[in-house]
Amino acid sequence: RINPDRLWDSLMEMAKIGPGVAGGNNRQTLTDEDGEGRHLFKRWCEAAGLEVAVDRMGTMFARREGTDPDVLPVYVGSHLDTQPTGGKFDGVLGVLGGLEVIRTLDDLGIRTKHPIVVTNWTNEEGTRFAPAMLASGVFAGVHEQDWAYDRKDAKGKRFGDELERIGWKGDEPVGERRMKAFFELHIEQGPILEDEGIDIGVVTHGQGLKWLQVTLTGKESHTGSTPMPKRRNAGLGMARITEMAHEVAMDYQPDAVGAIGHMEVYPNSRNIIAGRTVFTIDIRSPEKEVLDAMDQRIREGIELICEALDIKYEIEQVGHFDPVTFDETCVKAVRDAAERLGYTHRNIVSGAGHDACWINRVAPTAMVFCPCVDGLSHNEAEDISKEWAAAGADVLFHAVVETAEI
Amino acid sequence: RINPDRLWDSLMEMAKIGPGVAGGNNRQTLTDEDGEGRHLFKRWCEAAGLEVAVDRMGTMFARREGTDPDVLPVYVGSHLDTQPTGGKFDGVLGVLGGLEVIRTLDDLGIRTKHPIVVTNWTNEEGTRFAPAMLASGVFAGVHEQDWAYDRKDAKGKRFGDELERIGWKGDEPVGERRMKAFFELHIEQGPILEDEGIDIGVVTHGQGLKWLQVTLTGKESHTGSTPMPKRRNAGLGMARITEMAHEVAMDYQPDAVGAIGHMEVYPNSRNIIAGRTVFTIDIRSPEKEVLDAMDQRIREGIELICEALDIKYEIEQVGHFDPVTFDETCVKAVRDAAERLGYTHRNIVSGAGHDACWINRVAPTAMVFCPCVDGLSHNEAEDISKEWAAAGADVLFHAVVETAEI
Ligand SMILES: NC(=O)NCCC(=O)O
Ligand SMILES: NC(=O)NCCC(=O)O
Repeated sequence: RINPDRLWDSLMEMAKIGPGVAGGNNRQTLTDEDGEGRHLFKRWCEAAGLEVAVDRMGTMFARREGTDPDVLPVYVGSHLDTQPTGGKFDGVLGVLGGLEVIRTLDDLGIRTKHPIVVTNWTNEEGTRFAPAMLASGVFAGVHEQDWAYDRKDAKGKRFGDELERIGWKGDEPVGERRMKAFFELHIEQGPILEDEGIDIGVVTHGQGLKWLQVTLTGKESHTGSTPMPKRRNAGLGMARITEMAHEVAMDYQPDAVGAIGHMEVYPNSRNIIAGRTVFTIDIRSPEKEVLDAMDQRIREGIELICEALDIKYEIEQVGHFDPVTFDETCVKAVRDAAERLGYTHRNIVSGAGHDACWINRVAPTAMVFCPCVDGLSHNEAEDISKEWAAAGADVLFHAVVETAEI
Repeated sequence: RINPDRLWDSLMEMAKIGPGVAGGNNRQTLTDEDGEGRHLFKRWCEAAGLEVAVDRMGTMFARREGTDPDVLPVYVGSHLDTQPTGGKFDGVLGVLGGLEVIRTLDDLGIRTKHPIVVTNWTNEEGTRFAPAMLASGVFAGVHEQDWAYDRKDAKGKRFGDELERIGWKGDEPVGERRMKAFFELHIEQGPILEDEGIDIGVVTHGQGLKWLQVTLTGKESHTGSTPMPKRRNAGLGMARITEMAHEVAMDYQPDAVGAIGHMEVYPNSRNIIAGRTVFTIDIRSPEKEVLDAMDQRIREGIELICEALDIKYEIEQVGHFDPVTFDETCVKAVRDAAERLGYTHRNIVSGAGHDACWINRVAPTAMVFCPCVDGLSHNEAEDISKEWAAAGADVLFHAVVETAEI
C-alpha cells in the first residue's frame, strides 16, 4: 500500500504554488506559476533518483530504470496545470500519485522489470490555449507541433513563445517514446462514485467532445435610439444560441451534455448593442453518432438564429476528440487491483477529456477514478478525502506494478 | 448664420484626441484623453475671450458676459466624453456648436443682454462609470456628489479619484448656478430624420430609462462531467434573461426598446459552467407607465428563470430617469429658429438620454437634433455631413440668441 500522508502532504505542498482566490488554484499552463510547479515536481523526482527529460512541448518524463534493458517502460501520470479557478486535485493527483508509486517501490526496495516513467503533460486544461490535452495530442500525432506552437491565448500570446519564456521547452522530439502501457489516476469530476458510495471508478470509456467557437457579427448601435426592427444584435444572437445548444443537449441527455462557459461581448458597454460576440459551445457524448447529430443540429440552429437577426456568423472547431474505448488488458489490471485490495468499484465513463484519451491511440491505456465531493470540479472548492486519494493511488500502484512486472 | 467650415474644422481637430480603432473615438470620461480634450476646449474658449470655470464634478463652464449684470445667463452645451467605440459627433457637436455660437456672435460684433455659458458636462456616456449623465444629474440635485465620487469603473477605480488624477476637479460647488435656459444640440442617434429627409428635429420629449444590473450566482463546475440536471448555469440564466428582456421590449415597441449590451462571465473558461454572470438590462420608453410595466415584467421574469435554473440573483438599478417633457418656450424657440431659417423640421422624441434631460428639472430646457447617417451612433462609423452640422448649429445660434436677447 502507498503512504497516504506522504501523498497528501505533496498534494498540499503543490497547492501552495499559484493559489486561487477561494482556496483552490490558478496555475494555468505556461504561466510563471506553472514553471514553479514544474520545478518543485522535478526536485521531488530527482530526490527519488529519477532522471527527468523534457520534450519540445514541455512535457516532463521522470524515469525509474527497470531490470531488463530491452523492454518498454510503463508510463503513469497526468497534468499539473489548472483552470483559472481550479481545484487542488484535478490532474495533480495523477502526477503525484505516479510519484507516490515510485516512492512506495523505493520504500519496499522493489525493482520492476519494466522501467516506470512519471509524466506531466503540458496544457491539459485548454483554458488558456485551446484545445485541451494539447501536448498529449501532439505526442499521439493528432496535432502538428508547429500548429500547437501557434495556439494563442486571449491576449494573443503564442503557446510556443510562452513555453520558451518559462524555460520549459525541452530538446526531446515529441512522440518518439514507445510505451508498454499508460495509466492515469484522476478525480471523477462528476457525482456518480460519491453518490453510490463507491471507492474506485474503473474507466472503460471516455466521452467525445467538440468545441465550436462561434463569432457573431451584428452592428454596434445605440440601445436607446435604434428602433427594435433595425437592430442587428450579436448579444441577442449569443443568448439564443446558448439556449438552443442547451436544448439540443437536453434532448440527448443522459447521453450528452452541452454548455457555453466562454463568452465575450464587444464593445461591452451598457448602452451599445453588441456588434460582435465570441463564444465557445462545448458538447460531449459517449456516442459518436450523438456527438455528430448534436453538432449538425447546432450548426443548423445557428444558421436560423443568425438569419432571423440579420447577423453574420463564423464557426471554428477549436477542439475535438471522438469517444474513446480504453485498452481491455489495462482496464482489467485496474479492476483486478481494486478487487485484490478490497475496494468497491464500478465501470464508469469519463465525462471529461484526459491525456489518457489521446495516449490510448498510441499505447494500451486505462484510467483510475476516485470520487470527489459533490462531483465538483473546475471550481476552487473541488475536494477529496485523504482516504479517497489513497485508495486511488493504491489501485494505481498495483495496476502499474503488475504491468511493469516484478 | 454660423461658419460651417470653422465648426467642422474644430470637430475634426477634437476627433484627433483619443482616436478609436476604426475612425471614431475612444475618449472615455476621466481618461488622459478626456483631460487632453478638455485642455483643447479650454484653449479655444480662452482664445474667444471666455472665462472658464470648473465645478467639483469637473464640469466646465465658459462664460461670455452680457450687457446686463442683473440677468441670468443662457446655457448651451453637451459633453466631450465618448463611448469606448464612439463617434466623433455624439456630444462633441453640442459643445463645439455652443462655441460656434460664441464665435459667430464675435464675428458679427453682437453683444447679448444675457450672458451665454458654454458647458461641457462630465461623464455623459455612463460606460466607464454608471449611471450616464452623472455630472448633470448631480447639478440637477438627482444624485449626491459623494455618491457620484464613489461610482467605480470595471477596474474598481473611483470616479472621484480619477477626476482628481486627471486634474479636473474644480473648486466650484455643484448646482448653484441659476440658468435662464439651457439648449443642447445633438445628433439624433436614430434614423428618423434621415429617413424622412428632414433637417432639424425639434425635441419635445425624451424617453425614460432604467438600467438594471443583474448578478446571477450559480455554481462553477465541469462542462463535461456535471450531469445536465445537476447544473446551476449562470451563463444559461443570462441568456434566458437576455431573450426575455428582448421579448418584453418587443411587446411594447414602438413605444419601448430594450437590450443587454454589457455582459460579464466568470470564470469565462470553455470547460467551466459559469458560476457567476453580471450584466445590465437597458430598457426605455417615452411613457412612464410602459417603463414601469416593463421593469416589473422583467423582474418577474428574472425570478422565474432563476428559480427554474436553481440560481440566485441580485438586481441593482444603476441608472434611471423618467420620461422628460421639455420646456414649451424653449422648444418654441428652437422650432421658430428652424422655421425662420427655412430648414425642414419635425417634432421628435429623444431615444437617448442627454444632459438636457436632467437640466430640464432645474431650468427651462430644449434640444435641437440633426440627422446622422443610417441612424448610427455608439459606433465608430457614426457620421454626419457638414451641412447637417451647420443647420443644427444655425438653429442653436438663433434659439440661443433670441433667448439671450440682443
Ligand atoms: N479533466 C479535465 O478537466 N480536462 C480538461 C478537458 C476537458 O474539458 O474535459
Ligand atoms: N446621448 C447618449 O448617447 N447618451 C448616453 C446615455 C444613453 O445611453 O442614452
